[in-house]
Amino acid sequence: MYGFYWKTYKYDGCSRKCKVSKMESVKKTLEHIGKEEMADILKIQSAAMKAVHDYMWGKGVPICTPVILSTVTDPLNHPIHDSSIRYKGAKLELTKSMILHKQLAISRGNIRGIYIVSPNVRLEKDEEAESGRHLLEFSQVDIELKGASAEEFMRFMEGIYVHIIKYVKAECAPELGRLGRELTVPAGFKVYESKKLEAEYGAGFEGIVSEKEEAPFWILGHKREFYDREDKESGEHINYDFVYPEGFGEALSGGEREHEYGRILEKMGERGTRPEDFAPYLHAAQIGALVPSAGGGFGVERLVRFLCGKEHVREVVLFPKVPGEEVVF
Amino acid sequence: MYGFYWKTYKYDGCSRKCKVSKMESVKKTLEHIGKEEMADILKIQSAAMKAVHDYMWGKGVPICTPVILSTVTDPLNHPIHDSSIRYKGAKLELTKSMILHKQLAISRGNIRGIYIVSPNVRLEKDEEAESGRHLLEFSQVDIELKGASAEEFMRFMEGIYVHIIKYVKAECAPELGRLGRELTVPAGFKVYESKKLEAEYGAGFEGIVSEKEEAPFWILGHKREFYDREDKESGEHINYDFVYPEGFGEALSGGEREHEYGRILEKMGERGTRPEDFAPYLHAAQIGALVPSAGGGFGVERLVRFLCGKEHVREVVLFPKVPGEEVVF
Repeated sequence: MYGFYWKTYKYDGCSRKCKVSKMESVKKTLEHIGKEEMADILKIQSAAMKAVHDYMWGKGVPICTPVILSTVTDPLNHPIHDSSIRYKGAKLELTKSMILHKQLAISRGNIRGIYIVSPNVRLEKDEEAESGRHLLEFSQVDIELKGASAEEFMRFMEGIYVHIIKYVKAECAPELGRLGRELTVPAGFKVYESKKLEAEYGAGFEGIVSEKEEAPFWILGHKREFYDREDKESGEHINYDFVYPEGFGEALSGGEREHEYGRILEKMGERGTRPEDFAPYLHAAQIGALVPSAGGGFGVERLVRFLCGKEHVREVVLFPKVPGEEVVF
Repeated sequence: MYGFYWKTYKYDGCSRKCKVSKMESVKKTLEHIGKEEMADILKIQSAAMKAVHDYMWGKGVPICTPVILSTVTDPLNHPIHDSSIRYKGAKLELTKSMILHKQLAISRGNIRGIYIVSPNVRLEKDEEAESGRHLLEFSQVDIELKGASAEEFMRFMEGIYVHIIKYVKAECAPELGRLGRELTVPAGFKVYESKKLEAEYGAGFEGIVSEKEEAPFWILGHKREFYDREDKESGEHINYDFVYPEGFGEALSGGEREHEYGRILEKMGERGTRPEDFAPYLHAAQIGALVPSAGGGFGVERLVRFLCGKEHVREVVLFPKVPGEEVVF
């Protein structure tokens, strides 16, 4: 983490002994911010986000402001370091994703869908440092559509993707040119099943197929957190990953959602997820407040990395926080 | 804060003793989310945010993803509860505003300005509960323009404001109608000086003048945090508040910025701000990395409250966190 040394500041009567950060890390960050291509990357990011907002506006899906601290958050399906604070005796978690809040947001009234550009904090273990895709904090475009099926959400997401690619190509041709990046509007989207891919390629199937493909594709049916719907009769997982081609890996994950109290409790039990950590959410489910929906979230930084054709997500973020590395700013 | 009682969950072989949240608070939140007008409020919020993004895109100001955890953040000019976490032995603050990151973002290369829709966490003391304008977390549109003067930034902000009002009026006439709200594109913006207003109205001048006025206005010259520029010769504070009319109070605060290391240290000394809490930022200043700029930030929830004509900011947020109140979700 951030390294310090002791130094005495002296200036105009203000003299104190201070901890001062290591100059080298600061200089490195400033060089990163100041690199020639950063303005091009930010322009492409701005175009992509404008395309997202325009698309959502066109579809009548309203934006909600992000939640940062909450009594409940996404349990995730992999272990990370704790990130909670105490406020007046209560434990508040930093948002890992807004999945539970999205379900609540569309639970009532005439709100038929919602999206949020939601900063997520996930204090990943150091192992994720070299993935090229992990940051301790990132921004996610998180979408939920009331009453939608997996199919309907998938078409919706394909629409967003196509709109982003078209808009970025139209508005950022010089920037893409300088980055040496060509983008293609796909003719269609292949659909794979995770079981079949795993049988063929083993556990790392997502990365392997991502390397092979030239257009984004879907992988269906992942065993995941309690909130992704599972067909009780077939045992099928009604969820999906949207995956970038050229080895850029996962873009979005999502699914249809569980909304019945009993089913949620049962699935928490199977996964060792502690119901007591989700008390207010479970109460909402218990009184029948949750409704069927489908949704998903895609990371802004991973999208921009893909659009710019960069090796590591750090290259497209002004203040990247890579697992295992010193946090400078 | 969140109250719990003990209950035993029993379902399909999943039986455990759980802390369960108070049903009443959950129901109240769900009623809040489900109230008739919430869809109208979210539509107006979406229109306002689309207007912001469109304006920034038109002006060529790129968007940057928000920072949630950092070694440095805004010291603010009023006391709040601590909100930091430890990660691998280092203390990381939850972002109170992105002022310091904005300065760093535009410090190098060809990035001429930046904006962020930045969630800010400020664990306000309970006294702020009744202000109608305070939340423990809120989203801020935070803007910084490299080399800009206060005048230039003020014109820029007026442009954003006019664009928002025009767009919301054009796109949300039925929603405004149902909320009983009329919005007016102002003919111009009055400019006041804080010293003169304070002499006339006392310490609460901002609220008093906000009540009297029918269009947004500026108040110049506030003694504030170290980063707002102060003219060394005249002692004048080169900063501004943009204030809503009809008693809605402060919309934006901002100013020209200090960028010289010595000056920043000196002003920290005067304010009792501890340099050791800003070590990496000070290092950047010390090597001459910071540059002159002007900027400011306006809260999304306060904007939407004003656009909708609501008494309390809580009314326009799906998951409001009001100082002193229980956090439910």
